[in-house]
Amino acid sequence: MKAEILSIGTEILLGEIVDTNAAYIASRLPALGIDIYYKHVVGDNLERLAETIGRARERSDVVICTGGLGPTQDDLTREAISAVMREEAVVDPQLEANLRGFFESRGVKMAEQNVKQCWLIPSSRAIPNPRGTAPGWWVERDGKMIVAMPGPPTEMTRMWDKEVSPELLRRNPGTILITRTIKTAGVGESNVDEMITPLQESQNPSIGTYAKQDGVHVRLAAKAPDEQAAWRLLAPMEEEIRLRLGAFVWGADDDTFESVVCDMMKERGVTLATMESCTGGLLASTITDVPGSSSCFRGGLVSYATEMKIAWGVPAEIIEEHGVISVDTAREMARVARERHEASVGIGITGVAGPDEQEGKPVGTVHVAVDAMWESPRTVSYTFNQGRSAVKRRAVTTALALLRQALLAHRNEAMV
Amino acid sequence: MKAEILSIGTEILLGEIVDTNAAYIASRLPALGIDIYYKHVVGDNLERLAETIGRARERSDVVICTGGLGPTQDDLTREAISAVMREEAVVDPQLEANLRGFFESRGVKMAEQNVKQCWLIPSSRAIPNPRGTAPGWWVERDGKMIVAMPGPPTEMTRMWDKEVSPELLRRNPGTILITRTIKTAGVGESNVDEMITPLQESQNPSIGTYAKQDGVHVRLAAKAPDEQAAWRLLAPMEEEIRLRLGAFVWGADDDTFESVVCDMMKERGVTLATMESCTGGLLASTITDVPGSSSCFRGGLVSYATEMKIAWGVPAEIIEEHGVISVDTAREMARVARERHEASVGIGITGVAGPDEQEGKPVGTVHVAVDAMWESPRTVSYTFNQGRSAVKRRAVTTALALLRQALLAHRNEAMV
Repeated sequence: MKAEILSIGTEILLGEIVDTNAAYIASRLPALGIDIYYKHVVGDNLERLAETIGRARERSDVVICTGGLGPTQDDLTREAISAVMREEAVVDPQLEANLRGFFESRGVKMAEQNVKQCWLIPSSRAIPNPRGTAPGWWVERDGKMIVAMPGPPTEMTRMWDKEVSPELLRRNPGTILITRTIKTAGVGESNVDEMITPLQESQNPSIGTYAKQDGVHVRLAAKAPDEQAAWRLLAPMEEEIRLRLGAFVWGADDDTFESVVCDMMKERGVTLATMESCTGGLLASTITDVPGSSSCFRGGLVSYATEMKIAWGVPAEIIEEHGVISVDTAREMARVARERHEASVGIGITGVAGPDEQEGKPVGTVHVAVDAMWESPRTVSYTFNQGRSAVKRRAVTTALALLRQALLAHRNEAMV
Repeated sequence: MKAEILSIGTEILLGEIVDTNAAYIASRLPALGIDIYYKHVVGDNLERLAETIGRARERSDVVICTGGLGPTQDDLTREAISAVMREEAVVDPQLEANLRGFFESRGVKMAEQNVKQCWLIPSSRAIPNPRGTAPGWWVERDGKMIVAMPGPPTEMTRMWDKEVSPELLRRNPGTILITRTIKTAGVGESNVDEMITPLQESQNPSIGTYAKQDGVHVRLAAKAPDEQAAWRLLAPMEEEIRLRLGAFVWGADDDTFESVVCDMMKERGVTLATMESCTGGLLASTITDVPGSSSCFRGGLVSYATEMKIAWGVPAEIIEEHGVISVDTAREMARVARERHEASVGIGITGVAGPDEQEGKPVGTVHVAVDAMWESPRTVSYTFNQGRSAVKRRAVTTALALLRQALLAHRNEAMV
């Protein structure tokens, strides 16, 4: 089965917003055994939209569209599909009742133009969208499909995962491809490459290495008639790679540093608190992105002003002697965080996020400390300047990696 | 003049790497007066590449390609262009001498397959690439152009800025396009649409509305022979739209909620502190994304555990009576944040980020309070559930919008 992806919207076409939907969908097609040969972006123009959808439908079995399902005059996906199919759109009474109910329940008056979100054509059925007002369209005739989903990623991803992907899988039994990503940290891409060199000859599963923000990823992809057979190909290779990479491996697939660290803390009955300066709360926010993090995360302090650091308990003489931007201050911040929150581990981060240097220390200077009850404090210091938000993100990743090391030591401790 | 952009490479097609080149180029075409109607992504496949380039060339004046200029068998852009033009590629002696010199100067033996990077066809000339081994191709015949640039963004962006963009500008004197985005909050897309309905008939400037995470954006785009003339078209329309949307407008173009709010605080000499529960530090992190926010942001507390809220100063009896997830607790958190940090405004956020309900309150319940010295506390409460990170983001946007209202009142206060 062949698919084409079409992202719709002038803002995406002009590069004013980044299209994450097409990559999301494309990366999930192989597991459904669907080949993709083309992706397109077209603006909010009826003629060009219809032309592109029509040509894609000639060439491929399924055309997957995102965007253009809003209520305004700019939203033309329904109109374009109707033109391609030469079918007339009419308001579906059930969809209209649902939509009016939705607005009523919020006590908001529905603008009349919203009613176009209740259109259907004879070959289409509505795809439910509990996260928004625009249902998707599943259009099917003459053995060809067009799937139209809303543009907002939260709406699109849910619709894809819960509705579209399972339906496509049912219609396409045959060869499938499954992938497995093994995530490492603390080792460079060429080193990982060397450690697994002979294995990389393998064709099925195929093996690739990728340098990412959270370390080097090794990606395995296995093709087989069904999922079980694909896993039989993949499993022994994964085991071999894990053996070769050893303790550098910290997770797989959707694991994030923060999810892995939260799982480790729960296993060990450990609790965490933070005190952040240059990261401004990003560490706490990243940890609390993990569902269930409330069972291990006690809380955090964001001490932007120096006098607040002192007010919370960082000794003024440490700051006077070493400066706010120092490994000593980071260590004290970690201790204060731990003690103030009665947690078993504290993390302190101080540094220069930019744009200006501070205390004569260059932008990108960062000190991270992890103070755990079962060992003496660990620290990392470095300078890395690729802009304010990159400095913040890198510092958070560094802190989580350091925390992971402390937690690994806790296990060893307990095992003695 | 009309252009199409083609991004070439199987990794981009499969969504394994994000294509930043197409957006880079697309966002720079309007200022050259070049319209863009289509973007495409095609994998490393000769037939599909040639088909796509051929069709784009029929339809548009210039086809801009990135990727597929490397030395391997997968790199097929030159082959595809040669096929489309029905011209044979031959090794150019000057390019070959340059390339061999490049490898020699680095003491590296050139792999013989690299020689394809020295190909030219009769209609092509090489575009210099000091950042890599692959020159670009400028192909021109019968009044149509094909421009092929390398995929690595550092090579592409330099080639675009120094070589391709100036050349296109020379060939396309005449019309340019400028855009302006007006940002609103507190009003829905269809309502904005209604408020500006008659204006939307306008063709030049054209007007579009877009629902975004930080509110509804209205985008104006004006075409004219030069920039000054374009601004003359755009300015009265912007004024008219601002008049109609009134206080809903909070910014324009690159303004973010947090940057606007920080500017307002600096203007008014106001300082801010936060106390966050369900947002877990995201509010503090968002504010500290703004360069120079240290002059108005004092610090924040992330009180995930209930006993920490009490330890910092939220009265236990308020929590007992109303629950942690209550507007009363949010109001106390805002007060505590303000007092603890000796700031002029405090923000408190409490709610249920999920995945589980809390105190019998559903996931997505959020209470936000802004406690400013110059007025009684403002609060907002709502329920919005689109997943954990969306709940957090929405709560932060709501808090910044509420803070903005308080700051607007501060100005009125001062003016009395």
